[in-house]
Amino acid sequence: MVRRNPGRRAALLDAAIEVLADEGARGLTFRAVDQQAGVPVGTASNYFSSRGDILKGAGERVYERLADDDVIADGLQGPRDRARVTELMHALVDRVAAFPTGFLALLELRLEAVRRPELRDVLTHRIRADLDFNVAHHEKSGLPGDGTMVVLLWLALNWLIVERLTLPELFTDEQRHDLVTALVDRLLTGQPPKSG
Amino acid sequence: MVRRNPGRRAALLDAAIEVLADEGARGLTFRAVDQQAGVPVGTASNYFSSRGDILKGAGERVYERLADDDVIADGLQGPRDRARVTELMHALVDRVAAFPTGFLALLELRLEAVRRPELRDVLTHRIRADLDFNVAHHEKSGLPGDGTMVVLLWLALNWLIVERLTLPELFTDEQRHDLVTALVDRLLTGQPPKSG
Repeated sequence: MVRRNPGRRAALLDAAIEVLADEGARGLTFRAVDQQAGVPVGTASNYFSSRGDILKGAGERVYERLADDDVIADGLQGPRDRARVTELMHALVDRVAAFPTGFLALLELRLEAVRRPELRDVLTHRIRADLDFNVAHHEKSGLPGDGTMVVLLWLALNWLIVERLTLPELFTDEQRHDLVTALVDRLLTGQPPKSG
Repeated sequence: MVRRNPGRRAALLDAAIEVLADEGARGLTFRAVDQQAGVPVGTASNYFSSRGDILKGAGERVYERLADDDVIADGLQGPRDRARVTELMHALVDRVAAFPTGFLALLELRLEAVRRPELRDVLTHRIRADLDFNVAHHEKSGLPGDGTMVVLLWLALNWLIVERLTLPELFTDEQRHDLVTALVDRLLTGQPPKSG
């Protein structure tokens, strides 16, 4: 029987995220999750039917923790200009980088997805939903920049976060900051005029 | 005594790249490398003093294999215009994606670098050299776009390759193609005029 205490399930997935970030997908075992969560051996197996089930749940859980309502509401506040887009992108990078194990766990899950079609489907679906949400949210916000700009920002900022978390000395804080500003400036200036 | 047959050493590192891509850094053992390379057990330990030594060598080896003189020379051929930059970027993405285990092995190495300061130093040094080379090569080529543009392209294209290799259905081939074209167009159009 699968247990249904949502708080306990979330705590087990939080533990799984830490294990993934620290040990990689190969290090993720029921026992490692129990140990990380500080619960009796056998607890995780009451909540998840397989390792694959934990991997999928951990991916969802990272997004759940990153989807902060305050931050999303914040995007709808303030002036609707380029400086505000830049400010929001700096805040976005800082927010993701403030949960480094979440980002690293997702990278581990992506690499594991190469070997696991079922995990790949779940992640593709989740990430597409996130990207679609970001595009729609931006378009609704009245901020400058079209949907293509949102996707291009998303590509470049994701890799900037990879660098910040894995090779933090490749760029200085100031260089990273300037790259985000230049990226927003150039993409907005270079956006083709609306047709039709 | 460490053996010095360069061809054998390269073949062992090629095997290590495959093991990294397939099993992750945790799966990389002397035995796994010997097995993948199809050589007697104990061979890799004649060439490398530690697992860390193999990890560092594998990172270098990926760059060695990607640095194709023909492709680099190719960047100096043809017209010096925007269409040529776009063409070269499409070719770059295809070239990196054509060696998927190399890119995946580098991602595994980056994640391992979070735990290994020595590996982090080696990768930071190697990747900085690669980035500096790309900026200098572009500036020398007479193609449009400044050094900041090269770095911004590098950020976005790296993540586009992550998607292509780990979640290939997130974007269609056509969407990926259009994203590269839009990225180059907008960054070039949006580049601030030279001052001074």
